[in-house]
Amino acid sequence: MTDYTRFLSPTGRQLTESAIRRMGTVVARTGDMVSFAPGYPDASLFPWQELREISVGLLDGHDANTLQYGPTRGYKPLLETALGVLESRSVRATLEQLIVTSGSQQGIDLIARVLVSPGDVVLVELPTFTGAIAAFKNMQAELRGIRLEPDGISLEHLDEVWQQATRAGKSVKLLYLIPNFQNPTGSLLGLSKRARVLEWAERRDVLIVEDDPYGLLYFEDVAKEAETRPISADDRSGRVLYLSTVSKMLAPGFRVGWMKAPESLIERFDTAKQSTDLTSGILDQHIVHEALRLGVADRLAPRLRDLYRHKRDVMATSLAERIGSRLTWPTPKGGFFIWATLPEGYTDTALLERALQHGVIFVVGSAFHVDGSGHNTIRLSFSAPSPERIVEGSKRLAEAFA
Amino acid sequence: MTDYTRFLSPTGRQLTESAIRRMGTVVARTGDMVSFAPGYPDASLFPWQELREISVGLLDGHDANTLQYGPTRGYKPLLETALGVLESRSVRATLEQLIVTSGSQQGIDLIARVLVSPGDVVLVELPTFTGAIAAFKNMQAELRGIRLEPDGISLEHLDEVWQQATRAGKSVKLLYLIPNFQNPTGSLLGLSKRARVLEWAERRDVLIVEDDPYGLLYFEDVAKEAETRPISADDRSGRVLYLSTVSKMLAPGFRVGWMKAPESLIERFDTAKQSTDLTSGILDQHIVHEALRLGVADRLAPRLRDLYRHKRDVMATSLAERIGSRLTWPTPKGGFFIWATLPEGYTDTALLERALQHGVIFVVGSAFHVDGSGHNTIRLSFSAPSPERIVEGSKRLAEAFA
Repeated sequence: MTDYTRFLSPTGRQLTESAIRRMGTVVARTGDMVSFAPGYPDASLFPWQELREISVGLLDGHDANTLQYGPTRGYKPLLETALGVLESRSVRATLEQLIVTSGSQQGIDLIARVLVSPGDVVLVELPTFTGAIAAFKNMQAELRGIRLEPDGISLEHLDEVWQQATRAGKSVKLLYLIPNFQNPTGSLLGLSKRARVLEWAERRDVLIVEDDPYGLLYFEDVAKEAETRPISADDRSGRVLYLSTVSKMLAPGFRVGWMKAPESLIERFDTAKQSTDLTSGILDQHIVHEALRLGVADRLAPRLRDLYRHKRDVMATSLAERIGSRLTWPTPKGGFFIWATLPEGYTDTALLERALQHGVIFVVGSAFHVDGSGHNTIRLSFSAPSPERIVEGSKRLAEAFA
Repeated sequence: MTDYTRFLSPTGRQLTESAIRRMGTVVARTGDMVSFAPGYPDASLFPWQELREISVGLLDGHDANTLQYGPTRGYKPLLETALGVLESRSVRATLEQLIVTSGSQQGIDLIARVLVSPGDVVLVELPTFTGAIAAFKNMQAELRGIRLEPDGISLEHLDEVWQQATRAGKSVKLLYLIPNFQNPTGSLLGLSKRARVLEWAERRDVLIVEDDPYGLLYFEDVAKEAETRPISADDRSGRVLYLSTVSKMLAPGFRVGWMKAPESLIERFDTAKQSTDLTSGILDQHIVHEALRLGVADRLAPRLRDLYRHKRDVMATSLAERIGSRLTWPTPKGGFFIWATLPEGYTDTALLERALQHGVIFVVGSAFHVDGSGHNTIRLSFSAPSPERIVEGSKRLAEAFA
């Protein structure tokens, strides 16, 4: 047998597995498990009929460009359509500032590869998205967590951590944020804080990576669209790298997203993407372009907001009924997640073990914390399971609590 | 204006652009250019009707798995079908030794990320595929070229280069090879040499990366299927990482390939892929699975072989008629390319400039050489243009020569 240890690169040795992906594997293996784990969109609203018609139209067209290799930067009509989508969110961009990515995850990965040197500090919310943690760690970044307040990151803590790292001789390059209905907490960064974060990044010469998969999934009983205004919309000096995806608004299987960034960086992301996958899926880009152009995503959005709000309510009600005040959480104003705090004496990992025995699964809160904390938290996704399954899962979670 | 230089990682600073991709951009910008540049498959044989029926069937099925996030490792039925495809090429594998990649390019990239430390030596053919050069260089590998003989790499030079690097204290980890109808030379690694390369890799403790996009595109007038037997078929000790793709046999727009490698490495590639793109396109994987299962690719293969052989003949004949013995090349036994040597006094870059003025484009040979040599060579792809355009392009190339 060949011993492969000597062949591994530093990245290969310390690869970080996404806790969410691991959970996905567990779910796939077991039978009647209620999954509150991965943040999958609800498949019942995938626009099957529209996608069928679009696909038939494309494949009947026999246009070679639909299946051939395409430009690394992306299918141009899709990029042009994406400009309009950005504009509708008040983000102005030019074609030269845009690149199609294989989902937002590839955007994060390209940023990590092109911008992060080993030992560089990347600032993240405490807690934050595990896929971002993995991408930055795989480039040997040092991740520092910034405390969250009800309206998003603590600006005092942000500057404190920056000062500490800078004093220690570290280069602090990036601040990774999910301002809208954050993964995992569901929290919303306040508008005035957005302005101050941008001003801070300018003052401290840090780039902001703004990841915005959930921006259009605001719940109208407690949030307004205006509150989701991207930081990028007010970026005058090219401080913000802005990531979008159709994964939550159409379907994730297409692996189509895009990034807005300063032109000189887009050129480098383009070059880095060439050796990563040459190009994102071409048929997928054509389908997504048509779906956006024909208004499929726009028509779907209000229905998605209603559906997820309803599911949030079902989960909140059934958890409250069965588990009561032992489990507490702020009401999510949008997105896919309830972020719950456990009572004293409980830990996320111990609860997960008991939960698995009772047939329900979630993601442990500690997985989202880069500082080893968070063992008194769990992330419960209400996005994918049906309302009936949410009730059933809450029942099982209550049993695990007992 | 923000100055982004200080934000760049070592990778970001020295990104290597693929010469082939750059050519693609030039072609896209100009009007009536005959392109012998990118190795695009002939779109006239894309199986439109079959793909249309498959897509309709999938989207009518309303199975959430068709559009939802999927496992990083790949859609399981596709992996199972891929096992059969490998078996038909005499490569035996288990599911645990397999991962779906977003094209072969992602396979190369994952290998580079997981296995290459800065300064490691990667051995490549002289010349070799520019996408591999870029992927390895972006992980700061030192690339060393091995001379090609008519039946593939020189084993003497291979060991000589290995010894030199090893004496210099370098870690030589990988030997990257395209044994079948190599890109760019179209050459075929002899069967007895395959055995000796494998034995050499075992003795010198080097892993072989075997990239095999063209293996089924042998030209029956000068090559037999048996001559394309992958090195991986005779690998008993897990020395070979074997890359396949459907890009040349179905369509490249799907970005679907797979890699066979030792189980412990596949696990790491899986983890690295998680933070790269989470998963390859899901609908694409389902479509490709159906196309393989229903025999679409099998039925297509003989037609592809005939078509590309015919185009090779058209190009060879029209080049010989118009340019005569000033341009020389070995007859390709398969694949997409004629690899031509220029007469004394000509260089690839000067000829390209003149060629562009005459409305024809190709890739300069030096782009495929990691040692700065090759300026007396050019790569002419006959795969994509129609026979009429090949004749027209040859005419223009003759004018550029004059």
